[in-house]
Amino acid sequence: MRGLWIEDGRTTFREDLERPQPEPRSAQAECRVAVLRAGVCATDLALQRGYMGFRGIPGHEFVGRALDGPLAGQRVVGEINAACGTCSACLTGNGRHCAQRTVLGILNRSGAFAEELCLPAANLHPVPEEISTDAATFVEPLAAAFEIVEQVDLDSVGSALVVGDGRLGLLIAQVLGTRVANLELYGRHPERAAGLACELAWCASPREKAYELVVEATGDPELLTRALGWVRPRGTLVLKTTAERPASLDLSPLVVDEITLLGSRCGPFEPALAALADGSVRVEPMIHARFPLEQGCAAMERAAERGVLKVLLTI
Amino acid sequence: MRGLWIEDGRTTFREDLERPQPEPRSAQAECRVAVLRAGVCATDLALQRGYMGFRGIPGHEFVGRALDGPLAGQRVVGEINAACGTCSACLTGNGRHCAQRTVLGILNRSGAFAEELCLPAANLHPVPEEISTDAATFVEPLAAAFEIVEQVDLDSVGSALVVGDGRLGLLIAQVLGTRVANLELYGRHPERAAGLACELAWCASPREKAYELVVEATGDPELLTRALGWVRPRGTLVLKTTAERPASLDLSPLVVDEITLLGSRCGPFEPALAALADGSVRVEPMIHARFPLEQGCAAMERAAERGVLKVLLTI
Repeated sequence: MRGLWIEDGRTTFREDLERPQPEPRSAQAECRVAVLRAGVCATDLALQRGYMGFRGIPGHEFVGRALDGPLAGQRVVGEINAACGTCSACLTGNGRHCAQRTVLGILNRSGAFAEELCLPAANLHPVPEEISTDAATFVEPLAAAFEIVEQVDLDSVGSALVVGDGRLGLLIAQVLGTRVANLELYGRHPERAAGLACELAWCASPREKAYELVVEATGDPELLTRALGWVRPRGTLVLKTTAERPASLDLSPLVVDEITLLGSRCGPFEPALAALADGSVRVEPMIHARFPLEQGCAAMERAAERGVLKVLLTI
Repeated sequence: MRGLWIEDGRTTFREDLERPQPEPRSAQAECRVAVLRAGVCATDLALQRGYMGFRGIPGHEFVGRALDGPLAGQRVVGEINAACGTCSACLTGNGRHCAQRTVLGILNRSGAFAEELCLPAANLHPVPEEISTDAATFVEPLAAAFEIVEQVDLDSVGSALVVGDGRLGLLIAQVLGTRVANLELYGRHPERAAGLACELAWCASPREKAYELVVEATGDPELLTRALGWVRPRGTLVLKTTAERPASLDLSPLVVDEITLLGSRCGPFEPALAALADGSVRVEPMIHARFPLEQGCAAMERAAERGVLKVLLTI
């Protein structure tokens, strides 16, 4: 089949890729999905640079049509962690942390930048009619934004700051915007705050020790140290992006101010689908370019340009 | 008066120090205390090396006799953060995080390695008769260990690891030992696990991703990265010590495994006094040396030696 392939830090478009086959891993029935649309994420760019020593088909943000299984024929999105279903993590509802898991387009599982992919049936969610295929491509990163809602008691948060107005930051801002009283967004593009589904304050310069909740969504290690200083004593700093290299970090403020640094990754798909269906999160203005699959290398290049938000692959 | 003085990275014993005067800061009545015993802490050694640009009388672990105020004549220990009492942090019960606070022997307040000190009356706690003066010197660091009990829901913790069998690690191990089902202690001195008030397992080699709660009590930045790897996904790593320099840290596991990194500092004195009174924490075996105040420089040197636990100053 046709698809993108990463090897030795280089991405190529190939027409000779093997179609992935459903495997009955640990009794989890797998389904085949024909990919319709896929989104390029910062993680894909990191994999291209060699993160995790990746070799294979990348891509984990997608909308497709189920080719078999209980949702056959329907438009679907898919949770990217394929768990074993039988270990203690899985049995306690922590499948996203199963040690044996494969991860679509990231770890031991062919990804979505290709004509077809496979995922366990339990990972697939039907896409309601009112969500366009373009918009549904955002379900996976939007679910990651909703993970914060599961991890932090937002009712007790009186002031919050989202650091970063990139792809992920804008999704997080919209998720928090309707749930936190005083939300500010800090980034490089003040005009982006206007295009969101919720009202929030643009922050030109974050105040020291001022925010009960700060969400770091840039992946810039230098910003991380500064962000620690913006958290109020006993407040929380959520870290949403993995770094490719160790960061040099002064953790003294974390101890002195008793700050909670909270790692946050993939999240629940249900609220993300609901938010796109009811319009409480707006994603279309974030689509900056579309490329056909055979121009996938150009799509990756465009996504890596400064100031570019979401780049979609049409398959 | 007589006391120790740190300036330009050097500690000297002096007989010409000014006796600290009670100041009516923000309407908080202050008391004078004649110091009886003081303990040397890793923070004192860091201040000597230049941490926070400290200049003054160090020392914050002490037992004294109140010279005036409501506890006049009684043996007392004292909370080290002197808050303003009027800011929003103070008014919401977060006085330990008051931005205007002074900190005994650490920040803008003369410390306990001298004949006398001053603290707000509200900071002083009487020492019950059943606690020896030597043992009461441990109330302040023991309170810091009890801070973990306030911050973490220990009932839901099924397995825990204390990293470090130094002064602070042994106190934390004893506090957690009676509150956590499966506690292990990892350090350099297996024989120390035997001298504690509770039974716990010595850990020769921590297991990867095995512990719901890991407490880092060494201050070694290299161990911090390793400790992150010992935490189970969605588990908690408590950081109990400040570092003098920025640490190089790979935070990707924190995000991927959604770990909570929790800074923890000073804690409540009441449970620390209760634990010493009822014997559920044993501290006498941790006293490795006693020095008179005029040999304070030698005391600091001894406390800095590898393998030495608590060094006391008798005043």
